[in-house]
Amino acid sequence: MLDCIFCKIITGQSPSQMVFQDEQVSAFRDIHPVAPTHILIVPNKHIASINDLTPADEPLVGHLFTVARQLAVQEGIEKTGYRLIINTGSHAGQMVFHLHLHLIGGQRVRYPMG
Amino acid sequence: MLDCIFCKIITGQSPSQMVFQDEQVSAFRDIHPVAPTHILIVPNKHIASINDLTPADEPLVGHLFTVARQLAVQEGIEKTGYRLIINTGSHAGQMVFHLHLHLIGGQRVRYPMG
Repeated sequence: MLDCIFCKIITGQSPSQMVFQDEQVSAFRDIHPVAPTHILIVPNKHIASINDLTPADEPLVGHLFTVARQLAVQEGIEKTGYRLIINTGSHAGQMVFHLHLHLIGGQRVRYPMG
Repeated sequence: MLDCIFCKIITGQSPSQMVFQDEQVSAFRDIHPVAPTHILIVPNKHIASINDLTPADEPLVGHLFTVARQLAVQEGIEKTGYRLIINTGSHAGQMVFHLHLHLIGGQRVRYPMG
C-alpha cells in the first residue's frame, strides 16, 4: 500500500527501530512508548484491521503471537508479564490502518482494560 | 485440567453465558464486564498463557481472532470498534491461567494502553 506508513517501515523506506523481521511479520518499537517495552508486531502483508481477516489469515495472526512471546523473552519481561493489544476502529483508538499487535511490558500496567 | 475454571466452563461443568463454541474455541461473557460488550474467547485445549505457546498452536491462536471478528459483528460493534487484549503474568494482571482473549467494545475505551 503506497500510503501506508507501516508498509513503508516493513520495506525499509521509512526509518524504524526494527527488533525482528521474518518472511511473515515485522516488529519495531512504538515511537510513542507507554511503557519500558512497547513494540508493534505487524504482518508484512497489508491487512487493514481485524475486521478484514479471513480464515486463511489464521496461521499468520497466530505467528504474531509466537513472535510476541519470543520478543518478551528477548526483552526479559516474560516472567514479570506483559499485555498484548490489538485495537480496531475508532472506539478503540486505532490510528494506523495496518493491523498491529502492541506488546507492552516492563512495568505493572497502570490501567484496567475497559 | 481438573482445577481450571475455564476448562470447567468449556465442558459445561461450570455455568457461563456461552455465546459461541466450536471444536477449537469457546466464547462466553466475562462475569465482571468493563464495557457493554466484554466476551472471553478461549482455546478449548488448556494452554496456560502466551508464554506456553508453540509454533504448532499458531492456527489455533489465529482462530481466536476470526471468532472475535465474527462476535464483533454479532454484537453490532464491528464499525464502532473494539479492543482485543491478552494478559500474560502478574504485571498485566492475568487472573486465570488458561489463555483468554478479551473482546471489549460498545463504548469508547476509557484508558490508554500502558
